[in-house]
Amino acid sequence: MTLDTTLLDHVAIVLMEPKFPENIGSAARAAWNMGISRLIVVGSDSPDPERMAMMATHKAAHLLENMELHDNLETALAPFSRVVGTTARRGRQRIREKGPREVVSEIMPLLPDNDVAFLFGPEDRGLTNDDLKYCHLLSAVPTADFSSLNLAQAVAIHCYEIYQGIVHCQKGAAQSPRLATTFELEGMYHQLEKTLLTIDFLQDKSQIYYMNNIRQFFGRMRLSPKDASIIRSICRQFLSFKDAGLSRKK
Amino acid sequence: MTLDTTLLDHVAIVLMEPKFPENIGSAARAAWNMGISRLIVVGSDSPDPERMAMMATHKAAHLLENMELHDNLETALAPFSRVVGTTARRGRQRIREKGPREVVSEIMPLLPDNDVAFLFGPEDRGLTNDDLKYCHLLSAVPTADFSSLNLAQAVAIHCYEIYQGIVHCQKGAAQSPRLATTFELEGMYHQLEKTLLTIDFLQDKSQIYYMNNIRQFFGRMRLSPKDASIIRSICRQFLSFKDAGLSRKK
Repeated sequence: MTLDTTLLDHVAIVLMEPKFPENIGSAARAAWNMGISRLIVVGSDSPDPERMAMMATHKAAHLLENMELHDNLETALAPFSRVVGTTARRGRQRIREKGPREVVSEIMPLLPDNDVAFLFGPEDRGLTNDDLKYCHLLSAVPTADFSSLNLAQAVAIHCYEIYQGIVHCQKGAAQSPRLATTFELEGMYHQLEKTLLTIDFLQDKSQIYYMNNIRQFFGRMRLSPKDASIIRSICRQFLSFKDAGLSRKK
Repeated sequence: MTLDTTLLDHVAIVLMEPKFPENIGSAARAAWNMGISRLIVVGSDSPDPERMAMMATHKAAHLLENMELHDNLETALAPFSRVVGTTARRGRQRIREKGPREVVSEIMPLLPDNDVAFLFGPEDRGLTNDDLKYCHLLSAVPTADFSSLNLAQAVAIHCYEIYQGIVHCQKGAAQSPRLATTFELEGMYHQLEKTLLTIDFLQDKSQIYYMNNIRQFFGRMRLSPKDASIIRSICRQFLSFKDAGLSRKK
C-alpha cells in the first residue's frame, strides 16, 4: 500500500521552552518516524546543535536544520488554525482533555485545509494556563498514577496517533490472507490420521477422540495452504520412511 | 472511573541486550507511566545504575531495583506463555507483523491467565531471527520511510497501547485459556525436531528453514499445555515405534 502522506505537511510539533536540547532531537526523530517534518521551538536561547543532533540521528537532521525558532508562543502559533495543547494535569478552568486518539480523529477531517499545531510544554511544569489559552483542544495521554511522561515520548505517542489516523483514513479493504480450503484441510487430516494410526498413536477406542482434538487445534490455527502442505509432506515422508524400513526388514 | 490495573501485572517489558543504560531507564519510566512494573534485561553486563536512574526518574526507580537480569533469552522468556517480538524490519521467513494496537487486542483476552512478554531488540540492529524464534506474534509500529524508532519510544508506544487496551476492555473480561509456556513449547519443539530428523524430513540444509516454519505455525496456534503434550507424546510414540522396528530388524 502506498500512503498519501501529504496531509502530514499540515501538522507541526511545537515545543514550548524545552529545557534539554536532547529532547528536541528526540522529538525530531519521533516526528520524522511518522512523516512529520515541521518542528517549531519557542524559547529565548538557541538550543545546542550537537546535543540535539545526537538524539535526532542523521535521518532526522533536516528537521533540526529547518526548525523554526520563536521567542514567543503567539508568533509561533500564528499560522495555525487549530492548536492542540498536550497536558498531563487536570486543572480547573481548562477545556476537558481528551485522549490523543480522540483528538486526532477530530483533527483528521480538518487536515486537508488547515494547519494544525501540537503544542508540548516544558519538561518540568507543562503548559501554563496562559499557554493553554491558544489551544482549541486538549490532549492528555491516559496513564496510570505516574502521569508525567518524558517529553519526547509524549511527542512520539501523539505522532504515532497522527500517523495511525492517516493510515486508517486511507485504508481500503483490509488485505486478508488466503486460508487453506476444506479440500486442502481434509487431505491433510486424512494423511495425518493414516500416520497416527501407523504408529499406534490412535487406537480404535481413542481414534475419534484424538482426531477431534487434533482437528480442533488445527481448526483454531487458520492454516495457510502452505502450512497444510508442509504437514502433509511430513506425514508422507514418515510413511515412506516406514515403508523403506519395512522393506529393508524383509 | 477506577480502573482495575491488576491485569498489568501479567505484562513484562523485556529488553534484549540494550546498549545504552539511559534507554533502560527511559523504558522503565514509560512502562511505569502505563502501570507496568516488570522489567527484564537480557545481557552479559550489569548496566550502569546511575545512567539508568537519571532517565527513569525517582518515580520509576523501583522498576530498576526489581529489574531481572538474565544472560540468556530463553531463560528470560521461560515463564511467559505469549511473547510479542517488536520489529521494524520486514524480512522473509517472518511471521506477518501487525501494528501494536492489533497485537494488544489479541493479547488482551489472554491476560487474566497468562503472562505476556513484549520483547525489544538492541538499538542498532533489532531482534535477530534467532531471537524471533521465541515470539508468537510480531508487532511493528507503522511508520513513514524512516522506520527506526528510538528504543524507549518504541517501548512507550507499546505500553501506551497496552494501557489503552486495558481501559477499553474493562467491560467484563472474556475468559481466556491458559496457554503453553515457552518452557513447555521448547520441550515440544525439541522432541519434534528429533522426530523430523529421524525421518529425514529435516536435512542439514533445510533444517533451520523448516523448523522456523514449524515454529511459526505452532506459534500462531496458541497451543494449550495439553496440546503441547499431545504433540510431544505423538513424537515419543513415533520414536519408540521406530526403535521397536529397528530392534525387530536385528
